[in-house]
Amino acid sequence: MRSLEWIGKSPTGFRKKLRFIDQTKLPLEEIYITTDNYSEIENAIRRLSIRGAPAIGIAAAYAIVLAIQNYQKDFGSFEDYFRHVINSLKSTRPTAINLFWAIERMTSVFNSCINNSIEDILFKLEEEAIKIHDEDIRMCSAIGIKGSSLIPDKANVLTHCNTGALATGGDGTAFNVIVQAVKQGKKIKVYVDETRPLLQGARLTMWEMKKQGIDATLITDSTATFLMQQNKVDFVIVGADRISSEGFVANKIGTYSLAVSAYHHRIPFYIAAPSSTIDMKIKSGSEIIIETRDPLELVEIFGKRTAPLDVDVYSPAFDVTPPELITAIITDRSVLYPPYSASFHQMYASNK
Amino acid sequence: MRSLEWIGKSPTGFRKKLRFIDQTKLPLEEIYITTDNYSEIENAIRRLSIRGAPAIGIAAAYAIVLAIQNYQKDFGSFEDYFRHVINSLKSTRPTAINLFWAIERMTSVFNSCINNSIEDILFKLEEEAIKIHDEDIRMCSAIGIKGSSLIPDKANVLTHCNTGALATGGDGTAFNVIVQAVKQGKKIKVYVDETRPLLQGARLTMWEMKKQGIDATLITDSTATFLMQQNKVDFVIVGADRISSEGFVANKIGTYSLAVSAYHHRIPFYIAAPSSTIDMKIKSGSEIIIETRDPLELVEIFGKRTAPLDVDVYSPAFDVTPPELITAIITDRSVLYPPYSASFHQMYASNK
Repeated sequence: MRSLEWIGKSPTGFRKKLRFIDQTKLPLEEIYITTDNYSEIENAIRRLSIRGAPAIGIAAAYAIVLAIQNYQKDFGSFEDYFRHVINSLKSTRPTAINLFWAIERMTSVFNSCINNSIEDILFKLEEEAIKIHDEDIRMCSAIGIKGSSLIPDKANVLTHCNTGALATGGDGTAFNVIVQAVKQGKKIKVYVDETRPLLQGARLTMWEMKKQGIDATLITDSTATFLMQQNKVDFVIVGADRISSEGFVANKIGTYSLAVSAYHHRIPFYIAAPSSTIDMKIKSGSEIIIETRDPLELVEIFGKRTAPLDVDVYSPAFDVTPPELITAIITDRSVLYPPYSASFHQMYASNK
Repeated sequence: MRSLEWIGKSPTGFRKKLRFIDQTKLPLEEIYITTDNYSEIENAIRRLSIRGAPAIGIAAAYAIVLAIQNYQKDFGSFEDYFRHVINSLKSTRPTAINLFWAIERMTSVFNSCINNSIEDILFKLEEEAIKIHDEDIRMCSAIGIKGSSLIPDKANVLTHCNTGALATGGDGTAFNVIVQAVKQGKKIKVYVDETRPLLQGARLTMWEMKKQGIDATLITDSTATFLMQQNKVDFVIVGADRISSEGFVANKIGTYSLAVSAYHHRIPFYIAAPSSTIDMKIKSGSEIIIETRDPLELVEIFGKRTAPLDVDVYSPAFDVTPPELITAIITDRSVLYPPYSASFHQMYASNK
């Protein structure tokens, strides 16, 4: 299963489209949407039909290609239109670095061929978007292989949110580490946090676990610490939306709580993410912008109120885990250990 | 607001009834059920229409009175019928000690007057049930007053599940501590965990907070640790379903996770419960039976699936917090500090 599929790599001239699975309809309905309208992709990112840091970046890159493909003179100057499109895409989700990183790569390509024909610009942007997607597929594979050796045989593994094929262009990050360990014949039992408020663990990860035939048990988020107390968790692994140069990790709300609990119970706590998630421009966790979601996502489930009307709600989408609680960060390039600033510099120096 | 109301204390001969609020209908509908059928109360406890450790005990006591009131010869021998009723009530919820404690008190009364007339037995049982209820009202008041002085002015207070009037026969335990602190003029801001899977925090505590006009903000359970990291929580207070003689506390799932997080961030963590919650018959946490709830409560919200069909689910209703994570236990008799076994013994010795 691929969460994102680019339709019509060739011939040139053929109108390209993006096909994506509507994640808001899972787990009961597996519905795919095919569109050549970049606004539809933008809205899909905003309402989490497309979600997961790597998937958001790839979808934004393809959205730029579709926007250019649809350019018409009455939209205004070509360059102004391009800037409008990228600013609009940037405004969808503030925390995941992959979105900004992908848009930056597309902008670089655009700037490098700005005086060429629109057809040529379109060709080069499409090439770059496909490259971003292909790289992500390869990064997922590398993360899965590199991380899988860290999971002991017969381990009980705990994970949070969704980091599978749905969250990426490939086979997933933390999720793929588990899949690869199982493929190596290790007997793994997985506990999946339901991940409130949007239940990505229950809706998406449990759906992917079932598709992969992995032994998985769903729990409420706050049951995780109780399982740790009973020695039922040997290994915690989650993804990341942004990693600072000192190893502060922004990820789905609830990650920090798990990290504190794992630390208290001396259980190893791993992050798995593509190296593109590392943002060397920021040092500390406080520099990461944390997206706050619509209170309705918390107080309405399936359109029904879970709380009285007109109550105050605080619903951050992410939290930040400090480096001292993280055993290692598994990337496509290597497994990095603390101190992370040194590990990151070494990785970039040795492994370009 | 009283969650439980005994209708018709007198005259003798008048058929008595219990009126209770159906907590499963909150927060949007405030529906009261009036019944003289003990099975209806038993079912209400089972499906959490009546919930909260103290409220369960009181409701069970009244249920016994109603059962006796409805006794007819064709139900079998009077004594067998009584045993059948209490065994049936005991099977509703295994963790809260208050249920067993209340049933034990009613059984004692029954045994002491077993040879009297049915009218006399009924009178004495009703007297005991009303006494259990009245005692709980007084215990709630005492807990509120004793605990309120511990909350600093301008504190941000975090609580979990529901411990208010809905959970008790009176004004609540941990909830009433907050209410009394606010009544003393302290500026308190409260964060309320939604408390998955049954959302007692969102549905019930937010409803009671609103009724009391207290400044309360709803969060997901896993947001609590993130708030602690940002120094936005000064004081954590929760209730208890059973407390062992060494100070192990069984309470709503998620309590242990909060205790670990509070400990990590050096935030005081308080338990508030009637002294009747202390079970001197058991020492350690592992002796407390933890109720596991129906998986459907987790994977279905308002009748809609949150996870694929046929997935494994682990849904304990409670967890156990060890004494070393608890700053103090606030009871109606006194505020108890560690080591708890010594404090409990002292309380029972000095304060009979």
